[in-house]
Amino acid sequence: MTPLETVNEFIRRIVALDLDAVCDMVTDDVEYDNVPMGKNHGPEALRAVLGGMTGGKVSDLDFIVHREAATGNVVMNERTDRFVIGDQSFDILVCGVFEVTDDGKISLWRDYFDMAVVNDFVAAMAG
Amino acid sequence: MTPLETVNEFIRRIVALDLDAVCDMVTDDVEYDNVPMGKNHGPEALRAVLGGMTGGKVSDLDFIVHREAATGNVVMNERTDRFVIGDQSFDILVCGVFEVTDDGKISLWRDYFDMAVVNDFVAAMAG
Repeated sequence: MTPLETVNEFIRRIVALDLDAVCDMVTDDVEYDNVPMGKNHGPEALRAVLGGMTGGKVSDLDFIVHREAATGNVVMNERTDRFVIGDQSFDILVCGVFEVTDDGKISLWRDYFDMAVVNDFVAAMAG
Repeated sequence: MTPLETVNEFIRRIVALDLDAVCDMVTDDVEYDNVPMGKNHGPEALRAVLGGMTGGKVSDLDFIVHREAATGNVVMNERTDRFVIGDQSFDILVCGVFEVTDDGKISLWRDYFDMAVVNDFVAAMAG
């Protein structure tokens, strides 16, 4: 797989909520950075954060990729990450940065977004 | 110039505060979108927004590109946009998406970021 194909397969596994398969694709020291929220390192931290975001009341999840670009081991994409809770849909507008190692593992995943919609989503998860 | 070179030249002109030269590089219907703030269209709107962000009390400006990727006419970059006011430096962590037309004009510039630091910057501009 090319780095771009690797990132798109990674996203497919996230949306399928197959967190074992997600963690199989990352390095032992993977950096997972939600810029306004903070960084996590390693597959187990990634699993915990993704589990928290996609578990509980979330009935549907989609990552819609609008644009993507890849140069060398850097992959970037522009997405709408959609989390559905009951009859509410939370569309988080995201720009993601990934680095893929030569052996096809993801070593960096950093997402840029505004906190406003995320705060609404977190409130709905807790409410 | 390649699309990637076009975007980097565009950024050089912004940092140089040469807004005439910036506007020369965009299409008549350019979309300039600061995601949490809203969209503007056309060179004059671009000039007005950039002029507002870089004028007044701002004594220094830099766009530091950390990572970049290009595929076809899409260019994306990860940046720190630094605005200096007096002895304060406002570092806005940004991910940018650009589209470049076949004749080398920028038709889309969309930046993703969190509003928190921007709000501090706007307060310092007004204060």
